[in-house]
Amino acid sequence: MPEVLIIMGSKSDLPVAEKATALLKRFEISYEMAVASAHRTPKRVEELVKDTDASVLIAIAGMSAALPGVMASFTTKPIIGVPVSGKMTLDAILSIVQMPPGIPVASVGLDRGDNAAILAAEILAVNDEKLRKALCDYRKEMADKVLKDSKEVSDVQS
Amino acid sequence: MPEVLIIMGSKSDLPVAEKATALLKRFEISYEMAVASAHRTPKRVEELVKDTDASVLIAIAGMSAALPGVMASFTTKPIIGVPVSGKMTLDAILSIVQMPPGIPVASVGLDRGDNAAILAAEILAVNDEKLRKALCDYRKEMADKVLKDSKEVSDVQS
Amino acid sequence: MPEVLIIMGSKSDLPVAEKATALLKRFEISYEMAVASAHRTPKRVEELVKDTDASVLIAIAGMSAALPGVMASFTTKPIIGVPVSGKMTLDAILSIVQMPPGIPVASVGLDRGDNAAILAAEILAVNDEKLRKALCDYRKEMADKVLKDSKEVSDVQS
Amino acid sequence: MPEVLIIMGSKSDLPVAEKATALLKRFEISYEMAVASAHRTPKRVEELVKDTDASVLIAIAGMSAALPGVMASFTTKPIIGVPVSGKMTLDAILSIVQMPPGIPVASVGLDRGDNAAILAAEILAVNDEKLRKALCDYRKEMADKVLKDSKEVSDVQS
Amino acid sequence: MPEVLIIMGSKSDLPVAEKATALLKRFEISYEMAVASAHRTPKRVEELVKDTDASVLIAIAGMSAALPGVMASFTTKPIIGVPVSGKMTLDAILSIVQMPPGIPVASVGLDRGDNAAILAAEILAVNDEKLRKALCDYRKEMADKVLKDSKEVSDVQS
Amino acid sequence: MPEVLIIMGSKSDLPVAEKATALLKRFEISYEMAVASAHRTPKRVEELVKDTDASVLIAIAGMSAALPGVMASFTTKPIIGVPVSGKMTLDAILSIVQMPPGIPVASVGLDRGDNAAILAAEILAVNDEKLRKALCDYRKEMADKVLKDSKEVSDVQS
Amino acid sequence: MPEVLIIMGSKSDLPVAEKATALLKRFEISYEMAVASAHRTPKRVEELVKDTDASVLIAIAGMSAALPGVMASFTTKPIIGVPVSGKMTLDAILSIVQMPPGIPVASVGLDRGDNAAILAAEILAVNDEKLRKALCDYRKEMADKVLKDSKEVSDVQS
Amino acid sequence: MPEVLIIMGSKSDLPVAEKATALLKRFEISYEMAVASAHRTPKRVEELVKDTDASVLIAIAGMSAALPGVMASFTTKPIIGVPVSGKMTLDAILSIVQMPPGIPVASVGLDRGDNAAILAAEILAVNDEKLRKALCDYRKEMADKVLKDSKEVSDVQS
Repeated sequence: MPEVLIIMGSKSDLPVAEKATALLKRFEISYEMAVASAHRTPKRVEELVKDTDASVLIAIAGMSAALPGVMASFTTKPIIGVPVSGKMTLDAILSIVQMPPGIPVASVGLDRGDNAAILAAEILAVNDEKLRKALCDYRKEMADKVLKDSKEVSDVQS
Repeated sequence: MPEVLIIMGSKSDLPVAEKATALLKRFEISYEMAVASAHRTPKRVEELVKDTDASVLIAIAGMSAALPGVMASFTTKPIIGVPVSGKMTLDAILSIVQMPPGIPVASVGLDRGDNAAILAAEILAVNDEKLRKALCDYRKEMADKVLKDSKEVSDVQS
Repeated sequence: MPEVLIIMGSKSDLPVAEKATALLKRFEISYEMAVASAHRTPKRVEELVKDTDASVLIAIAGMSAALPGVMASFTTKPIIGVPVSGKMTLDAILSIVQMPPGIPVASVGLDRGDNAAILAAEILAVNDEKLRKALCDYRKEMADKVLKDSKEVSDVQS
Repeated sequence: MPEVLIIMGSKSDLPVAEKATALLKRFEISYEMAVASAHRTPKRVEELVKDTDASVLIAIAGMSAALPGVMASFTTKPIIGVPVSGKMTLDAILSIVQMPPGIPVASVGLDRGDNAAILAAEILAVNDEKLRKALCDYRKEMADKVLKDSKEVSDVQS
Repeated sequence: MPEVLIIMGSKSDLPVAEKATALLKRFEISYEMAVASAHRTPKRVEELVKDTDASVLIAIAGMSAALPGVMASFTTKPIIGVPVSGKMTLDAILSIVQMPPGIPVASVGLDRGDNAAILAAEILAVNDEKLRKALCDYRKEMADKVLKDSKEVSDVQS
Repeated sequence: MPEVLIIMGSKSDLPVAEKATALLKRFEISYEMAVASAHRTPKRVEELVKDTDASVLIAIAGMSAALPGVMASFTTKPIIGVPVSGKMTLDAILSIVQMPPGIPVASVGLDRGDNAAILAAEILAVNDEKLRKALCDYRKEMADKVLKDSKEVSDVQS
Repeated sequence: MPEVLIIMGSKSDLPVAEKATALLKRFEISYEMAVASAHRTPKRVEELVKDTDASVLIAIAGMSAALPGVMASFTTKPIIGVPVSGKMTLDAILSIVQMPPGIPVASVGLDRGDNAAILAAEILAVNDEKLRKALCDYRKEMADKVLKDSKEVSDVQS
Repeated sequence: MPEVLIIMGSKSDLPVAEKATALLKRFEISYEMAVASAHRTPKRVEELVKDTDASVLIAIAGMSAALPGVMASFTTKPIIGVPVSGKMTLDAILSIVQMPPGIPVASVGLDRGDNAAILAAEILAVNDEKLRKALCDYRKEMADKVLKDSKEVSDVQS
């Protein structure tokens, strides 16, 4: 039984999805991954959303990115939307962010599959102290990496 | 049996819908009008689209305007999308225009319920000479109005 | 006697036009293709539009994409506009979408010659059950492709 | 002990915050509300975020809306960002959505305090069946309202 | 025989046209004013452009402002395009500025009928020393006005 | 004594300038070309503009493209501004188009050195029938090229 | 002898300038205020900039806001640019921010005369401990105001 | 004791930082360089800002570029913000420019580390005549380079 369901609108979105799965694995969060299109396979989107036992859903889509909103229309579970970059960028961002009142989508940044995974982990950690700790550890690693980078940059200039 | 089905995403879109119905009446095209939201009432959108006998469908929606695309996902009939203006304008335009390959929506301009109706008439006129003539008459009236306006403007300056 | 007339504003738009002709061939819709510029050869645009027996017209143009609107000014047949990407993207989209009241153009997405062809087919299918069925078959193929992609993506992760 | 902490960047954001509190009250979710500015009172933002027992945090801010990201920098709890409209709109949306890898913010739409509250409820409902049911009831009410609106619109046209 | 022909796409553009005529009068440049729409009355646009004896043409239009470009397609005389503001602003600006190679339009700023008139005068002054002098006088008046404003502002602060 | 003075803001704008000179040569219009920066060499811009005998001036600049407007501030001769593309595109377009009342710049499209040259020719042709004829010939060639392209495209499809 | 020179491009920018002078007065920084236009009175801009004894210059301008850059071209003193809102907003922001290499302008936000004054004070405070202290006091007042607002907002909700 | 502190949000911003350090070296201004992230290492940003003896601070950041504003929240010294280009450009520009009243950031253009350094020098030169002279020399070199480029371009055309 997966904790997170990732749906991407097109197989070409896989690199963005893999940014998410890399982090979900690290946090030992089980997940399931599917391709389903709000426009080409609306019934399958509905089935996937209604049948899943996952607690958090991630939707990855570009252009007139209806997928996150359509998923949100079939569930009251938290939906995280990831806009995918393309010939334009505002199309996917605005399509995901500007949801009508009553049906929220939690948008993260352009191509930010990684942040979608971390946000999913943060949501699951609301009732999971061990996961909260794992998130804090990850934060610490990031901070250490910044300090290391800073040292390298300082050394360069001397 | 209506020839055109108009779905607006929210009752607040009624003024845009009425620009459409005013012209459909003039062209003696029967229509039906409903409020249905891609996000709040997805099943009702599906039912309305699948059950209608209308030949052409008009979708009116603002913000992350998923309605036209969602309607298109349930039918192969022509869908005309009308973006509605709000705090932003690009959100609705790009959400409607930038459909993925395979599922087209015919977008008209911001708040252009009138043009949606005329486009619907043009589509129905493909096999209806009388309607084609009515469209030509309408064009002529518009042109006459422009000439009249031009005369007024010329007179003003003299 | 072609059912669809495709006019592109410049020979450089041919790749977008070929996305359209690939699908028109599949749907066994006859078509004619021409290069004509709203700005460089206005009379030829007028002649092509007035002389054609086609029922639906597709206009492909970039930058200040006046071609679809100019074609619309000479006919009451449905005009489908395809904005072509370039150094900017909003220029072509807005030039095609934001038509004045009375003269609609049905805009599809950036470089979406494919969707223009499908929309043309949908319009012709209003009175052609066989074509409607072909469109449904195409939808089914697309859906099957999505399911196949989904399976591949699921297998990858296991 | 509040379940949700709402921080607004300026007292002028109160109307957006009140869209949130109206819904939190309805869902019987306890909350706390404060004004704190990422730029004028950075220490207070830090204290509020670190000291709170709330499980979910809502950040409401306009212009170069750093507040949600700064709050996210002090906690691994889920942060929901609400961009506030002003002379521009893209400034607040992009400042909130485009977070760097590692530190997600869950952005909702422009001025959508209501959706921030519902998203907070969806997150809390991951482990609260009663709240999940309340969210479903709310969805149903919204759907009923749409049906009622649809009926009114249909009656108008007859 | 007018020196300048002003065509506006709609009578609602008259206030912008009047900013132009006020200055043309001042410079004692004869002009003619008409309403003609690239989309509603294409033949009339063609006739007006081909029949005029004017040396410079001003085109005033909003939204997908095809008028300046269409006028340019019928003549090699200089065309000055004035984008008119509306629900969007980029649509008219980009439609007028982004002309294809070979057919230039001289775009001035949003609603800048005044600058269109001055540019027309500058063009006519290429061979008219008296007009050149009138333009210099106008510049001087503007500069004097700035100095006067500056004095008022300085006085205010003391 | 050159008829046209071309000033580019940076030597890197030379390719855009050469699009202009190629056409000026064709129309046998004499020209002079200089690099001068509104920001780095303001006095030189002033000298070049004030000292030139040219009738029409072309300004080529990118980013916060002040050059055309600054040139316009020193003369009442027609200034044609060419925005140059870079990391952004709107910056140069808006900086050139949005001039204040009283000081017009005639903006052409992004990187359109060619159209700047044709517009300069159109302005000079106001009093030069031979040049007018050369412009008409050029138009005809362009139209012939479009017809030839159209034939090729038609042949491709057969 | 003023420490700060404020130049606004038009008398209509006075309200933005007064946001600056209110704060300069508070910080007991002497200033001088003038109207001068980069396009209408270029020589006066040059004179004002070259003749002033002020250490910091503030430029307030809208649309194709060349004023800050033109002022920067005549001095190596720090220039603070304030974009003024109008029918568009991006025009003034991008015209001021996107300066070429070598000639910086320090841009503050839309209509932010207040922040221009504070930035000027911060620059003058580099060698003025008393002024630094005054800036710290101002920060403290702002922070106290936020705390007071926060208390009011908390009380409202109880 | 460095005069300028440069903080970049990520090591990947180093090329932009090096445009700054190249010029600081030329002007013999001492500097220190660090990597610190407003979102990943907020405490380190605070420490760096509070502990530095530098008089001017440069912040280099992309996307939702909170770094300059967060630095500004901890000091009343002048902060110069450099937006870094990426998949979007407006995100970083607007995040840095649109600061709230009371806490200014001095924004320079996209990737303009060079202009940040010159602006820092201009600020330090307020009380340093030698540095002012060095800045004037640099201006002169730039102007000479423009004249040399102009000569080359003129020679090319002959």
